[in-house]
Amino acid sequence: MRFFSDNAAAAHPAVIEAIARSNRLDTAYDGDALSQKLDRVFSDLFETEVRAFWVLTGTAANCLALAALCPPYGGIICHRDAHIEVDEAGAPGFFADGAKLMLVDGPGAKVAPDAVDAALAGIRQDVHQVQAKALSITNATEYGLTYSGAEVAALGETARRHDLAFHLDGARFANAVVSTNASPADLSWRAGVDAMSFGFVKNGGLNAEALILFRTELADEFAVRRKRAGHLASKGRMFAAQILAMLENDLWLDNARSANAAAQTIAGAAGERLVYPVEANEIFVRATPEEAEALRAQGFDFYDWGPGEIRLVTSWDQKGEPLDRLAAAIAAL
Amino acid sequence: MRFFSDNAAAAHPAVIEAIARSNRLDTAYDGDALSQKLDRVFSDLFETEVRAFWVLTGTAANCLALAALCPPYGGIICHRDAHIEVDEAGAPGFFADGAKLMLVDGPGAKVAPDAVDAALAGIRQDVHQVQAKALSITNATEYGLTYSGAEVAALGETARRHDLAFHLDGARFANAVVSTNASPADLSWRAGVDAMSFGFVKNGGLNAEALILFRTELADEFAVRRKRAGHLASKGRMFAAQILAMLENDLWLDNARSANAAAQTIAGAAGERLVYPVEANEIFVRATPEEAEALRAQGFDFYDWGPGEIRLVTSWDQKGEPLDRLAAAIAAL
Amino acid sequence: MRFFSDNAAAAHPAVIEAIARSNRLDTAYDGDALSQKLDRVFSDLFETEVRAFWVLTGTAANCLALAALCPPYGGIICHRDAHIEVDEAGAPGFFADGAKLMLVDGPGAKVAPDAVDAALAGIRQDVHQVQAKALSITNATEYGLTYSGAEVAALGETARRHDLAFHLDGARFANAVVSTNASPADLSWRAGVDAMSFGFVKNGGLNAEALILFRTELADEFAVRRKRAGHLASKGRMFAAQILAMLENDLWLDNARSANAAAQTIAGAAGERLVYPVEANEIFVRATPEEAEALRAQGFDFYDWGPGEIRLVTSWDQKGEPLDRLAAAIAAL
Amino acid sequence: MRFFSDNAAAAHPAVIEAIARSNRLDTAYDGDALSQKLDRVFSDLFETEVRAFWVLTGTAANCLALAALCPPYGGIICHRDAHIEVDEAGAPGFFADGAKLMLVDGPGAKVAPDAVDAALAGIRQDVHQVQAKALSITNATEYGLTYSGAEVAALGETARRHDLAFHLDGARFANAVVSTNASPADLSWRAGVDAMSFGFVKNGGLNAEALILFRTELADEFAVRRKRAGHLASKGRMFAAQILAMLENDLWLDNARSANAAAQTIAGAAGERLVYPVEANEIFVRATPEEAEALRAQGFDFYDWGPGEIRLVTSWDQKGEPLDRLAAAIAAL
Repeated sequence: MRFFSDNAAAAHPAVIEAIARSNRLDTAYDGDALSQKLDRVFSDLFETEVRAFWVLTGTAANCLALAALCPPYGGIICHRDAHIEVDEAGAPGFFADGAKLMLVDGPGAKVAPDAVDAALAGIRQDVHQVQAKALSITNATEYGLTYSGAEVAALGETARRHDLAFHLDGARFANAVVSTNASPADLSWRAGVDAMSFGFVKNGGLNAEALILFRTELADEFAVRRKRAGHLASKGRMFAAQILAMLENDLWLDNARSANAAAQTIAGAAGERLVYPVEANEIFVRATPEEAEALRAQGFDFYDWGPGEIRLVTSWDQKGEPLDRLAAAIAAL
Repeated sequence: MRFFSDNAAAAHPAVIEAIARSNRLDTAYDGDALSQKLDRVFSDLFETEVRAFWVLTGTAANCLALAALCPPYGGIICHRDAHIEVDEAGAPGFFADGAKLMLVDGPGAKVAPDAVDAALAGIRQDVHQVQAKALSITNATEYGLTYSGAEVAALGETARRHDLAFHLDGARFANAVVSTNASPADLSWRAGVDAMSFGFVKNGGLNAEALILFRTELADEFAVRRKRAGHLASKGRMFAAQILAMLENDLWLDNARSANAAAQTIAGAAGERLVYPVEANEIFVRATPEEAEALRAQGFDFYDWGPGEIRLVTSWDQKGEPLDRLAAAIAAL
Repeated sequence: MRFFSDNAAAAHPAVIEAIARSNRLDTAYDGDALSQKLDRVFSDLFETEVRAFWVLTGTAANCLALAALCPPYGGIICHRDAHIEVDEAGAPGFFADGAKLMLVDGPGAKVAPDAVDAALAGIRQDVHQVQAKALSITNATEYGLTYSGAEVAALGETARRHDLAFHLDGARFANAVVSTNASPADLSWRAGVDAMSFGFVKNGGLNAEALILFRTELADEFAVRRKRAGHLASKGRMFAAQILAMLENDLWLDNARSANAAAQTIAGAAGERLVYPVEANEIFVRATPEEAEALRAQGFDFYDWGPGEIRLVTSWDQKGEPLDRLAAAIAAL
Repeated sequence: MRFFSDNAAAAHPAVIEAIARSNRLDTAYDGDALSQKLDRVFSDLFETEVRAFWVLTGTAANCLALAALCPPYGGIICHRDAHIEVDEAGAPGFFADGAKLMLVDGPGAKVAPDAVDAALAGIRQDVHQVQAKALSITNATEYGLTYSGAEVAALGETARRHDLAFHLDGARFANAVVSTNASPADLSWRAGVDAMSFGFVKNGGLNAEALILFRTELADEFAVRRKRAGHLASKGRMFAAQILAMLENDLWLDNARSANAAAQTIAGAAGERLVYPVEANEIFVRATPEEAEALRAQGFDFYDWGPGEIRLVTSWDQKGEPLDRLAAAIAAL
């Protein structure tokens, strides 16, 4: 059983069916009937008027948004372990024409308001140093922690005070919503977020992510940037179809609940071995190389994560017997 | 019946089935079994060792290749009506960090060797003028003409003489192959092409294009650029599956034959009204606004293309009765 | 006697003296007393509040301004023979992160309002085509023609109607002011210009150009971009000193008058051979290769300019006997 | 007496005289007789064939070189306190089209080979993480320390082992040469350096820096990039003249000796208060705010540098009585 990452799991059958159903001639790009629904359904979901776009990958969703929020000569404050810093191959610098990531630290890849204040305090206000123009956080974080609505709001207040745009990487937003029991609105625009990626691929989607603009005046620029970056597919209805299928009957929440529950099963077994509290669907466990080997010998796959730690990520479709076996195996270490 | 563009047609059922079949847990990105097959199947198809990648759109396939072939300070010679110039929102400048398109003219969007020579003769060899570093052509062209193997080879020779990399936009490569009866090899590397996009989306695919590198030493750089541009999807198996389905049993050729045949049906009816010879699946017809209106009144949709012209594009799935009705309607004008 | 270009002439002695005089310890970059004067003296000169910066080259002055006026995904309308298109090595694409030059034609490198309208009419208003965001003209033009205040104003009105920023390449602005007898204000902001380069190097300066922002709210961004492009020299007082010396007692106007007068001397001799009216300090003369050779044999150097034409450019310090000899030689052809 | 920075000092009179002497008509850009000498004189100085260019600022010299050494998708390892990271406004990301600085730590802004090894060990070799392509060091460092020839060679060996290009920021190279008593060759190409900026402005020059390419095959690309970045001034002879004046009779070494000696005078007085050994012309001294205030009250200006530290930088022309007064004042604290 593989726990490398939720991004490799199968898509939910409803997503595949939606793709098949959408497979008919329609207006190209995002002129089709399904793509045209996105603004409406996400506006309802977020309880405010938003502009919503499908995008083909999370990297594109994040970096297209950052390019619209930060000028080429600006800086983007983010955590040292943020996906945009660590795992996007320098895409922020590419999409935002050389804009610079400014790294802050904090346990579990969480950014704290005072870390932002401290980072800004270290920048001289002159033309010789890059000035920060945006703040980016990830919820749930790369280490499976979540920000509550109040925590996001505190960062939003920090961003506003320093005149920073506020970006949210929501690759695992569903897991955060389920975990915090907060509303999508409370975790985003009500807390000051200007734009966010809304992930589906790690949550049972196939290959469509959403980009949500709460500052709707950025929509025209964003649409141009999406095309210019080669992210405006001609049969866009298929991406919209996936997203709509995920939203219908709250499938996105069901899937996230399932993945989070699977993570809790493992976390319960890991107990004292946990490196971080498990608040979403990622579990970091202290394990010697021998212990890791023992787990692998029983058919479980996962990443080593630094010396003496392993990382397991649960997916929407991992449940039942094999999961219980993994839990038992970890408990037996 | 809509003849706006082949890029809005339904995908072939075999493509949808392949997506459904590939929907299982596998290694992420392009580490899966299907993606790993691409080098092999395209090497067989092209009768030489190539490196092959799935890419999410034609714009990305073209511009990622151009970025690998042309330095930021270089120029790319292409036709004034080339898709990269006219319809990609400035993507070449974005992907290649400011590289400049250098436009040449020629009937039917075809580039002739002497047009390339003339363009180069107009550039002073100093640091004040941008120096051309690449040549890009489209086969079939944006006006539905094709280059024969000999014509591509003449351009390849021109490129080599001027030390230009040679890029082929193959969004409708299948239509060109069927039309010219040339082998894929003769229309590409044997004629000097260094890299090409190989289109599927306009030919019954859903949302996967291929990028073929004949200069295989560019593969590592290309792979990095693809990721950095947000074009490395995590469930890549689904893109590979589409491409493999299109190649299986030569479905790509069957589809192109069908679209080309549909175009011939219309072309036969248009006769003297044709603006260009119809060699692929695009038909440009002289028609007054009133005539265009009359066709639309009969249920046919298409683009006006400049004053007194209309453009019709046929798809793999347009055949039979409605097509005959359109032909009759055009003949009756 | 060399008539290749005014950009190779000696600097006026007053400029060298000013450099020597400014050679003392002062605050670095543009914090020194001389640099701090620029806003004031240019505001007086232009009869409005402006922000003024020294920049090290005309290419930098133009392209830094264009980067502040046009987003990376936008287009800049300019003449096909504009310096930014022909002789700046692709710098606009570099400074403006891939922004695209959109070329219009017109005699003598002059842009006419209806050429701008026509260019814009040819652009579909969608995300697939680059949308124009700026207009750039050169006064005096690369062919030595000038725009009157009314002509600039007509272009300014055109730019405003299409929501284009308006940039003026003023590498030979002095020659235009002298030639048109218009005020600097009438040739710039009163005619709708948002930003301009103000040339000194071709007019007796050594190596400092000025960049004038009439939209003063762009100043902070411009200052950052100047530094980021490596154009903020540490001993900036020396650049300011040059500019102030050129402005003092209207030396810049005297120099331009002298160069323009020299051009008139030659133009008078060339008579029917002139390709364009001579309105500034560039003269294009029809001459066979043999005639050109004959002139060179008498010690005059200049560029061939296409078949059967030569280009001569006069400098502030070219006057008297050798000039009369050249005029006589041309008259004698 | 001001000790803010050596970059604000007066230029040496010989430099001003050279400018005045070069003020005559000559071929534009770098076609003049003086510019054409640079390759020769620097090849002699470095005891190997080099290509040498004047550049207008140190930021441009560094970042143009880095752009030629590192692809847009690559990373450049440098010290966290390196000028390119801290004080160049993000210029590396601009010139190198989004390339990423990768920061290492080390006392006194010195990079150690094992810090480079450690940084590289932390990068996964895949397309998701930016791969390092270059190493950049500064000699003398931003904290006034120097690398010996052996130390540079160890880094060069490290770079070669990891296939990194090796760049040297030589803004204060003269101070390093004087301090280490090593030959320019031993501190550069013999130690594996591929390209370096060679600073003059901080050492008595006015506004010309040199860029030296030991990998001479990069010269053509560099020349294009210099023009494209607006750093090819038309009266280039004036920049070459400055550099030649500085090299003549080893003025550059005399000036550096003078500045270093001034620093030693202060260092001797500071004794235990020194934060770093004083090996060039920068002195970091522990001083309470009250002590700093006391020094300022006596007419000495300098920067505060973090809590409880001040920075003083000496220039080529600071000597004699006022310097002794400063030394006495510091000793008296």
